[in-house]
Amino acid sequence: MTTAREVLDRCVLLDRITSDPPRLERVHLSAEHAAANALAATWMEQAGLRSWQDAAGNQCGRREGRTPGLPALLLGSHLDTVPDAGSYDGMLGVVLAIAVAERLRDADLPFALEVIGFSDEEGTRFGTALLGSAAVAGHWREEWWDLRDRDGVTLHQAFTKFGLDPRRVGEAARAPEELVGYLEAHIEQGPFLEAADRSLGYVTTIAGARRFRLSIIGEARHAGGTPYPRRRDALVGASEAITTIERMARATGDHGCIATVGRIEVQPGAVNVIPGRADLSLDLRAATDAERDAMWDAMRGEIETLCAARGLRLEVVEHHTAPAVPCAPWLQEAVCDGIRSTGDEDPMGLWSRAGHDAMAIGLTTDVGMLFVRCHDGISHHPDEDVREYDVAAALDAFEAAVLRVAAAVEAR
Amino acid sequence: MTTAREVLDRCVLLDRITSDPPRLERVHLSAEHAAANALAATWMEQAGLRSWQDAAGNQCGRREGRTPGLPALLLGSHLDTVPDAGSYDGMLGVVLAIAVAERLRDADLPFALEVIGFSDEEGTRFGTALLGSAAVAGHWREEWWDLRDRDGVTLHQAFTKFGLDPRRVGEAARAPEELVGYLEAHIEQGPFLEAADRSLGYVTTIAGARRFRLSIIGEARHAGGTPYPRRRDALVGASEAITTIERMARATGDHGCIATVGRIEVQPGAVNVIPGRADLSLDLRAATDAERDAMWDAMRGEIETLCAARGLRLEVVEHHTAPAVPCAPWLQEAVCDGIRSTGDEDPMGLWSRAGHDAMAIGLTTDVGMLFVRCHDGISHHPDEDVREYDVAAALDAFEAAVLRVAAAVEAR
Repeated sequence: MTTAREVLDRCVLLDRITSDPPRLERVHLSAEHAAANALAATWMEQAGLRSWQDAAGNQCGRREGRTPGLPALLLGSHLDTVPDAGSYDGMLGVVLAIAVAERLRDADLPFALEVIGFSDEEGTRFGTALLGSAAVAGHWREEWWDLRDRDGVTLHQAFTKFGLDPRRVGEAARAPEELVGYLEAHIEQGPFLEAADRSLGYVTTIAGARRFRLSIIGEARHAGGTPYPRRRDALVGASEAITTIERMARATGDHGCIATVGRIEVQPGAVNVIPGRADLSLDLRAATDAERDAMWDAMRGEIETLCAARGLRLEVVEHHTAPAVPCAPWLQEAVCDGIRSTGDEDPMGLWSRAGHDAMAIGLTTDVGMLFVRCHDGISHHPDEDVREYDVAAALDAFEAAVLRVAAAVEAR
Repeated sequence: MTTAREVLDRCVLLDRITSDPPRLERVHLSAEHAAANALAATWMEQAGLRSWQDAAGNQCGRREGRTPGLPALLLGSHLDTVPDAGSYDGMLGVVLAIAVAERLRDADLPFALEVIGFSDEEGTRFGTALLGSAAVAGHWREEWWDLRDRDGVTLHQAFTKFGLDPRRVGEAARAPEELVGYLEAHIEQGPFLEAADRSLGYVTTIAGARRFRLSIIGEARHAGGTPYPRRRDALVGASEAITTIERMARATGDHGCIATVGRIEVQPGAVNVIPGRADLSLDLRAATDAERDAMWDAMRGEIETLCAARGLRLEVVEHHTAPAVPCAPWLQEAVCDGIRSTGDEDPMGLWSRAGHDAMAIGLTTDVGMLFVRCHDGISHHPDEDVREYDVAAALDAFEAAVLRVAAAVEAR
């Protein structure tokens, strides 16, 4: 039976399948993607699952339930990574799901059990995230075929090169009636479990981000010759906007809104020219869409006011909007019961600030998520770390949660 | 005799010598540089000057004084431009100097009169400014030969391709004893003359900029999962620094310090990652080096304090320092008298916030500058504009200033 130590060892083995050694990078439809799928397939087969790669490049495994052909409970996460990634974001959830399926190899279940390693969650290669899980959810978009990677290769070309038939991507889609639900284990990617001294937590909802490009437009002028009253400095305006954004989001407290400006570019960008234009990104998240949207309305108002005071113009483009995906109460309860079985009497609930495959799968079936404590909240970084102690608890809790789902299905 | 209208027409003719039509861009050691020199040479010859291109690519013209071989009063400015330039920055000063030489063609002068169109003031091509005037001042640096343009061409290669012999660049240098002084006319590149309703002003000193790269170093982390108390967001720290820089410089008033952040870059620069590092430029100027240096010390202290409060680290690299170059009192007086001759009884003195060829030439001889009102202080932009009325005044004042210098030399 796979132990917590072996789960961690499997994550380290997957680390070696990288396009950028010694750094970890494994992107959609690459040779490393194929190799990771093949390795996961061997573990699936050892766990008693029949394995296959689906029409969207996801690695799947299945064992039947009490009778063949029953709807399936899906367990999974993703096998792709960001550049210079850590070892656990995604992979831990896949490896845990396989280990849980192994533990339940002989269990009498009122559903089929499937494990899935999604092909693309991060969107590293083509800039659009959740391609693997969107295919399974039946929410593929035709315009995605024209997405290009940085070498100009289209998604359509990459599918073909990988040995997949783009015309058949729809075959990856799963109908709601084939599914009982979806459970995903994932590192928290935040510090709250560690701060509360807990191994595990259950997710209440997965926040949907809104992403904007804010353009602040002033006037480029000679840095030496232009006194302050004549300046319309786009970067000083942008700086006021950035500190305002932080101040407003921060004021909502630890469990309130999160707003991040991750990119900024100024024009013309010369050491002796006052910036005439600044473009910045804004990523805005909250537990509920209503909180998030109210925060945006308030922020936009303040930014417009400060721009007007400096003779600057604000332009806003919203280029990404995802609604929050609540975890189904009955699956929250199952995960919660699973955590209780490990001795934590009053499990901690969290909203997920990060996006997950469960967001896409939530479009077609109920979803639940188990969070595992990680070191110092670090993620998307080689320092990502989890403790063997917590992984052992996660294995027990995940297994117990699946049995709790079985009981709930039996009781219907 | 060249009229103000003809001076403006010559600037428009020079506009057509551009590598990027319809925008004006004319850089060091380009085919356009050679063409502009050749055109200026024809005007010099028409003005009665003997013309030649010196060993650094500067276009020169000379007429002897009362006896051949006397030290020279230099009149000049530059013929190179920034990208997407206006028509007057530099060129107006060269064309005015030629027109003044023409007016004084038959004057009995106690010095030779030379006109010079400098080859490089802006530093557009090789990133280092004042290459032409530094050569004339005898302050050439051997390390400049390795400067590269954006195509990887070294300054050494470009010299050779232009038909110049790098080994002979020293021949462009002028010894102090060959020179009486240097007078330069230039558009103000600021709004003070316009605000005071004056055509002309005399320059008291040319500010020397200090330029820094400020690096603010925090920690890159996942934008969703990291709550505010855990963040060390380099961009929010940089934004506080930028608003602090503006506030402190602005507080010194209209004739105090000028501080500009023209560039900013953040790492890793992803929409969903908290910036771990921000690099910004700072260009700092004041009328005196003492004011400028005191401002920098105060700014650095405040920026270090705000960084420390956020767990950020500040690194500073100073990559350019130029001392202020005061205009010689006797040449200030000559320019002032020249302006008085146009009917302005109490000429306005200004410190130059922008750098000029006179800064380099000031290393080898006394310098004086005449500023000409420009529209709305706009420079380094196609909207740069001057009035014919002001150019007529500049012609008269510049001519009178040269005669005032002659009187001063006679009186020695």
